[in-house]
Amino acid sequence: MATTTQPQPLALEPIESGNPTDDARAFRRALGQFATGVTVITTRTPEKSLGMTANSFSAVSLDPPLVLWSIRKESSSLDAFLNSGHFNINVLAEDQTGVSEVFGRPREEQFSQVEWTEGMFGGPLFPGSIAHLECATQEVIDAGDHHIIIGRVENYARFDGRPLLFSQGQFGVPGAFPAASDDQGDNVSGSAAIGHEQAIFMTLLKAAEQRMSQLFEDHRHQVGVTVATGRILNQLSTGSDTVEALAHKTRLGQDTVEDALIELAGQNLVAARGQGSWEIIEPGREIQDALRQSAAEFNAHQLADIPAEDLAAAQRVLRILLNRDLESEKEAK
Amino acid sequence: MATTTQPQPLALEPIESGNPTDDARAFRRALGQFATGVTVITTRTPEKSLGMTANSFSAVSLDPPLVLWSIRKESSSLDAFLNSGHFNINVLAEDQTGVSEVFGRPREEQFSQVEWTEGMFGGPLFPGSIAHLECATQEVIDAGDHHIIIGRVENYARFDGRPLLFSQGQFGVPGAFPAASDDQGDNVSGSAAIGHEQAIFMTLLKAAEQRMSQLFEDHRHQVGVTVATGRILNQLSTGSDTVEALAHKTRLGQDTVEDALIELAGQNLVAARGQGSWEIIEPGREIQDALRQSAAEFNAHQLADIPAEDLAAAQRVLRILLNRDLESEKEAK
Repeated sequence: MATTTQPQPLALEPIESGNPTDDARAFRRALGQFATGVTVITTRTPEKSLGMTANSFSAVSLDPPLVLWSIRKESSSLDAFLNSGHFNINVLAEDQTGVSEVFGRPREEQFSQVEWTEGMFGGPLFPGSIAHLECATQEVIDAGDHHIIIGRVENYARFDGRPLLFSQGQFGVPGAFPAASDDQGDNVSGSAAIGHEQAIFMTLLKAAEQRMSQLFEDHRHQVGVTVATGRILNQLSTGSDTVEALAHKTRLGQDTVEDALIELAGQNLVAARGQGSWEIIEPGREIQDALRQSAAEFNAHQLADIPAEDLAAAQRVLRILLNRDLESEKEAK
Repeated sequence: MATTTQPQPLALEPIESGNPTDDARAFRRALGQFATGVTVITTRTPEKSLGMTANSFSAVSLDPPLVLWSIRKESSSLDAFLNSGHFNINVLAEDQTGVSEVFGRPREEQFSQVEWTEGMFGGPLFPGSIAHLECATQEVIDAGDHHIIIGRVENYARFDGRPLLFSQGQFGVPGAFPAASDDQGDNVSGSAAIGHEQAIFMTLLKAAEQRMSQLFEDHRHQVGVTVATGRILNQLSTGSDTVEALAHKTRLGQDTVEDALIELAGQNLVAARGQGSWEIIEPGREIQDALRQSAAEFNAHQLADIPAEDLAAAQRVLRILLNRDLESEKEAK
């Protein structure tokens, strides 16, 4: 944040590196470069149902059908998962961030906050997930501060929908490949071959949006803000919040929020208010204003040489498209 | 594909389900609902360097720092990885699909096709990856048709950049959350609070693009085409191709391409030509023409009630934005 006015080169030097035992948080950020889906793993004991959000899932073997995941030895659910003999993997869909949050930390009454059904082993399954894997626990392996749990998949189901993603400390959804030829079968330069003005418009819309996102990403990098610190300063500028509330509002992982708050507090931009709440303090407010201003300048710069009447017309078109009902297309068929 | 003219309900019924041992390919598709990053895992033996593309990576423990991945027992690189005592995880960036392909199947001269440097254990590291994890092999666990390899991370490095994704059989990149408040700190309805017409335009651009993508996804679902079968028919309509070439051109995984070709061949839409090559045959060409027509109708429907002069103006604006140079913004600062 100290480098706000200094452009930074996009170099091949690491942002952070070293021996993992020297800085566990920095190591965790490196691990977070590997994108994952999000699962909630559930089981049922004679006493109760349990569930926990996890992204350590990995497919292992097709024949026999094996999968694995890891559980912290300190988890309050450890004994239940080690002893129940079975577990269910719910692979969450893009609209299940709520389910992810409910099972992100142990708390009371989790299963009264979500819809669920009972699987073949008695453990909960969530409707709306994009895959269910019902597993018999096959082996538990001691691995550092976690146990690796290997399960044999006895039943699977795949559902329609897009996955929820967790990547670089943020929740997200899979995006199209910027360079990929478009699924609508057209590309911007191929107008002669296609001849559909409308297809060109849709392709242009996607390509222009991706270009602007990429440029803004570069811009943010240059002003020395990360996605996490930027979103948190922005959120705190509207009022103080707890880590959990910040994670919810910014779509960041709780670890990521904690890391960013530590960084921002070290720069004297935010401060702990007590009772787990954080607030932006005066130097932070100035930085946040400067960032907002800088974003506004970026936008103004991108649009500066476009005639005002074209911009107004484009804005009308975008508003119409944004307001297209998801159902109208179906009814029109 | 037989349901081309029949709208399908978006229900909570599974697309496929059952016991994994009954249909390994269908089970693999269910596993593929869990999104992952893409890694190339390398090692060095006294004779040579080896590398293989893998998405079975999982972080296990912070203290001690442990990670794992799985290797097929039938892999020609198995002995090298079991005996070398060390391995490097390269977490690939969005622009490293080429590296992913080079190491996707064993072949000659892989390391002459990519840039690499030597890590602390002698194994190759790829510049441009977003994380390097240099590991000492700690334990190997027999797990069905794979071995799970657990490594202790001795050195890590995190680099700037976005991850390459593999999700539902397709390569991709992380996308923004449709419902998330925008990183530029504004939203469409909050115009009074912000007052920047340009910020509103950028937010509108993103939201309209996401809405159109979502509607097109629904549309494709209704006409009974998957991303994979749609892309492959489209690609084969331009000429016959091998599985490997199709995977490259469509940004689909090779398993996904194979599954889709089996499905399309079963519907008599494509046929094997020999020497590993596939071609579209007449019924397939008719379906492909119908799909193209249907996409054109979708586009025309979305844009039908927009005045032609507004559409033309919007198209001019989008072309200007698309052609913004990634460097110009930096120089302008």
